[in-house]
Amino acid sequence: MQPAIGFIGMGIMGMPMAANLLKAGFTLKVYNRTAAKAQPLIEAGATLAASPRELAQEVDLLILMVTGPEAVQDVLWGREGAFRELGPGKTLINMSTVSPRFSRELNSVLSGAGTTFIDAPVSGSKKAAEEKALIILASGPQEAVAQVTPVLATLGKKVVYCGEAGQGSMMKMSINLLLGLMMAGLAEAVAFGRAGGLSPEAILEVVHAGPLSCGLFQLKTEMLLSGEFPPQFPLKHMTKDAKFIIDTAFETGAGAPLGHLLLHLYRRGLSHGLGEEDFAAIYRVLEAPPG
Amino acid sequence: MQPAIGFIGMGIMGMPMAANLLKAGFTLKVYNRTAAKAQPLIEAGATLAASPRELAQEVDLLILMVTGPEAVQDVLWGREGAFRELGPGKTLINMSTVSPRFSRELNSVLSGAGTTFIDAPVSGSKKAAEEKALIILASGPQEAVAQVTPVLATLGKKVVYCGEAGQGSMMKMSINLLLGLMMAGLAEAVAFGRAGGLSPEAILEVVHAGPLSCGLFQLKTEMLLSGEFPPQFPLKHMTKDAKFIIDTAFETGAGAPLGHLLLHLYRRGLSHGLGEEDFAAIYRVLEAPPG
Amino acid sequence: MQPAIGFIGMGIMGMPMAANLLKAGFTLKVYNRTAAKAQPLIEAGATLAASPRELAQEVDLLILMVTGPEAVQDVLWGREGAFRELGPGKTLINMSTVSPRFSRELNSVLSGAGTTFIDAPVSGSKKAAEEKALIILASGPQEAVAQVTPVLATLGKKVVYCGEAGQGSMMKMSINLLLGLMMAGLAEAVAFGRAGGLSPEAILEVVHAGPLSCGLFQLKTEMLLSGEFPPQFPLKHMTKDAKFIIDTAFETGAGAPLGHLLLHLYRRGLSHGLGEEDFAAIYRVLEAPPG
Amino acid sequence: MQPAIGFIGMGIMGMPMAANLLKAGFTLKVYNRTAAKAQPLIEAGATLAASPRELAQEVDLLILMVTGPEAVQDVLWGREGAFRELGPGKTLINMSTVSPRFSRELNSVLSGAGTTFIDAPVSGSKKAAEEKALIILASGPQEAVAQVTPVLATLGKKVVYCGEAGQGSMMKMSINLLLGLMMAGLAEAVAFGRAGGLSPEAILEVVHAGPLSCGLFQLKTEMLLSGEFPPQFPLKHMTKDAKFIIDTAFETGAGAPLGHLLLHLYRRGLSHGLGEEDFAAIYRVLEAPPG
Repeated sequence: MQPAIGFIGMGIMGMPMAANLLKAGFTLKVYNRTAAKAQPLIEAGATLAASPRELAQEVDLLILMVTGPEAVQDVLWGREGAFRELGPGKTLINMSTVSPRFSRELNSVLSGAGTTFIDAPVSGSKKAAEEKALIILASGPQEAVAQVTPVLATLGKKVVYCGEAGQGSMMKMSINLLLGLMMAGLAEAVAFGRAGGLSPEAILEVVHAGPLSCGLFQLKTEMLLSGEFPPQFPLKHMTKDAKFIIDTAFETGAGAPLGHLLLHLYRRGLSHGLGEEDFAAIYRVLEAPPG
Repeated sequence: MQPAIGFIGMGIMGMPMAANLLKAGFTLKVYNRTAAKAQPLIEAGATLAASPRELAQEVDLLILMVTGPEAVQDVLWGREGAFRELGPGKTLINMSTVSPRFSRELNSVLSGAGTTFIDAPVSGSKKAAEEKALIILASGPQEAVAQVTPVLATLGKKVVYCGEAGQGSMMKMSINLLLGLMMAGLAEAVAFGRAGGLSPEAILEVVHAGPLSCGLFQLKTEMLLSGEFPPQFPLKHMTKDAKFIIDTAFETGAGAPLGHLLLHLYRRGLSHGLGEEDFAAIYRVLEAPPG
Repeated sequence: MQPAIGFIGMGIMGMPMAANLLKAGFTLKVYNRTAAKAQPLIEAGATLAASPRELAQEVDLLILMVTGPEAVQDVLWGREGAFRELGPGKTLINMSTVSPRFSRELNSVLSGAGTTFIDAPVSGSKKAAEEKALIILASGPQEAVAQVTPVLATLGKKVVYCGEAGQGSMMKMSINLLLGLMMAGLAEAVAFGRAGGLSPEAILEVVHAGPLSCGLFQLKTEMLLSGEFPPQFPLKHMTKDAKFIIDTAFETGAGAPLGHLLLHLYRRGLSHGLGEEDFAAIYRVLEAPPG
Repeated sequence: MQPAIGFIGMGIMGMPMAANLLKAGFTLKVYNRTAAKAQPLIEAGATLAASPRELAQEVDLLILMVTGPEAVQDVLWGREGAFRELGPGKTLINMSTVSPRFSRELNSVLSGAGTTFIDAPVSGSKKAAEEKALIILASGPQEAVAQVTPVLATLGKKVVYCGEAGQGSMMKMSINLLLGLMMAGLAEAVAFGRAGGLSPEAILEVVHAGPLSCGLFQLKTEMLLSGEFPPQFPLKHMTKDAKFIIDTAFETGAGAPLGHLLLHLYRRGLSHGLGEEDFAAIYRVLEAPPG
């Protein structure tokens, strides 16, 4: 029989991921700040813990998929936090997006207390989570990662080993930098062409016909054409990631000139009230203003 | 019998394009400043004209694929230029990359003199030209474009009608803006990750596994991994295009913040002596300097 | 008796400059596209020419202070233009702002036809023109510049020799680059502090108390505090200059990263309808949007 | 008799500031991590404390002028730190440069424990510190600031009240943003002109003759002309401040596009090994590379 897995975080990403663990036959115990959100999982067979602490008592493998570093800290050290129940024999996999630095610090505290820590953020958004098409960016002690790979493999189509703890988050930052720049690039190119009298439809037709065509652009075409940006990955979260990227570049010495500008553009997007829209809404910032 | 086609410009792009016209069965008369470069085509059945003027006398359909606006002007108005032999009944298709403004001005002068002018730059580089995988961005009078579409279709996999003369060049600028931003984005993401301790191989593996994967990145992966950038599309030409893009944005009012930065980065690349390398060599500018 | 001077251009700058020539005792013949604007000068003793051509016939020294390269071309080669009356024995001083390249080309054509050409734009705006506080950035053959220095000295407080024709315009670009960056810097610093809860008054008090204090900031303080930007030097003209700067950097290989961004910000300013405001109105672009 | 003042931090700035307090007749007790550095002050009449804690026991007014937030934390909470000896009746003035956020958090902890906290960074560098020409950017409870103003006035030429604790640091960020942009603007303008064939001497002559002339540019002219950048304010510290500025903009929502680029340029400067040079050495980054 497979060991029980604890899972914390029932958001856009966590929900389908937890559901996929259940479908794969794992015994699942969950916790979520807003317990009601866990209801569909309970109905599908998961059991609900009253607190992170209770969850950490009951399982040896705990997965976090929460909204960022503050939420991770809260789960571990907040009221009825999980930290005091961790220790030797327990493994914590953080799949939430945090900065590499935060992840290294987390590793230092947790492994110092005997817990096995794995930093394993994911590349891919809601749709990929549902379709088990995520790419898992796993880092930490190599044998420990190998041991949990069967679990991680349940959540996506590929598990890539990135190095010691923190390097998964570094990979996530690299990929999200590219993701942000490609999306902003498409938005700027469409806005540029439109200001010059071309139809967005024609531009996207040419893009899709050649070597610039990719899954991302297909996913966002409808948004650019309709001017509606229902959030798959909200701009406010992408902005947070862009700040992690620039903070990280500040530490590593990476140049990242385009990344600096991207952060600035995202921040303008937030000022324009686009934080809750999909990050493709950066198009609205790049559009030539009327007149 | 199909009418003879005149073709001027035996460069990286022009050469395989002219060869494809020959292979498609068209009678081809060519001219090139350096006549020797035309030799392979002559051997394949083309005939050589002594000047643009002579070529324009002999054919009704003239195609230009030269290095830019100066070369176009030289072909038309230089010594023994083609202009004086053009006029009613003649069609000029310019496939060279020029700014939309230049193309509109060219159209004004040529159509004013009775010549049918078609602005039809291409998206795609050397390999696409050889494999007839170009996308032809055609613009001009709709019936005239329709009439030459059988010829254009011989050169690529798709002919997209973009509007009145100049709009093909506008589309080309839009696509090249995206092309430049995607390539620079990949270069910056790889440089960023590498400064953070990741291997370029691992980063590219993750990129290729997900929705950011595209033909362009596959084409450039080997360059990024080897650090060698043999020119498929030289940085100096891409820089010229980036300047056209910013000049165009200046006229249309498009914002193009990323485009401005891209031009700046390309210019740093030229200062670093990378002009003759492939434009993927922008990676060298984005790499964190040692120490 | 001092020789008569011809002066073309009765705009914000040309008007007080021409008036200062009159006050200094020079015989002045003027031309302006809108003749009515010359009325105050006529009343003060100047005579009016019917065309640039007529003016060039009557004087040996012709000064242009018009709105830019197009206006210079129009004065010289437009209907009844001055060019055909220029030649050996005649001197043309262009004080209008143009790019170094344009100025070099102008020099090539004019000196090729025997005319002495002096490129002498000015640093300073309306108030400096009125108070003879301009700095004259003179370039051209050294003896020719020496010869007209008594005339130029009448218009400002300093004549700086910058080198061969075109270098005066190069100096003007350098100074305007700094001017634009300082103004934008002040605007951004005030907007930044204000977003953080400081009063603009307090920020400007600190600026004026220390080593960042300068005449420019004193001149613009009232604008930043009142939010009204009556044009001393309109943003649309400054934007044109910023474009010359970037075009020039493109030719010389100068990096100019801040200049690229400045041009982008100015262009956003034009999009926001600020073209007719003083260039200090870039503040409105840099202000944090409400909410 | 005036009360004794405790002063921690004997660096480039702290040293002349402490000396000025002594000269003004204050009884001074000092602490420095490297005790030897305090020797000149001891000889001038100051007494040396063995630790921050000892110093805080002995005085009611403690001034910090250390290298940044980490050093402030170390002084307060490190081994033999001052914190446990603070409390009601004691006043701490932090004059070190920190972010507004750090200052507000410090205020929260200190005032929560009954200590009066004043955030009072300075505008001006080494020379201004020596000549008592600093501008003191004081913030905190208005009466408390009023009470220490006689002490602060001893250190500079002006004390500006900026609001509640943290706002002095906000003002410092605003001023340093302008400082950095002006210096980078001058450097870029000189580099631009030089790439166009002008001599730096001529450019600076024109700058100094007009409304852009200011104390800062006079201070840095010799550096730009000689190419030597002896540190008055090292680039590495300015880079740290630029990061605080962008972090602050991220929190307040200020746009700061030029500030983002400035941070990027500074970081390139560090990569070029310029961290220990004066921040005017950004000129080396902006110079057109040879060839």
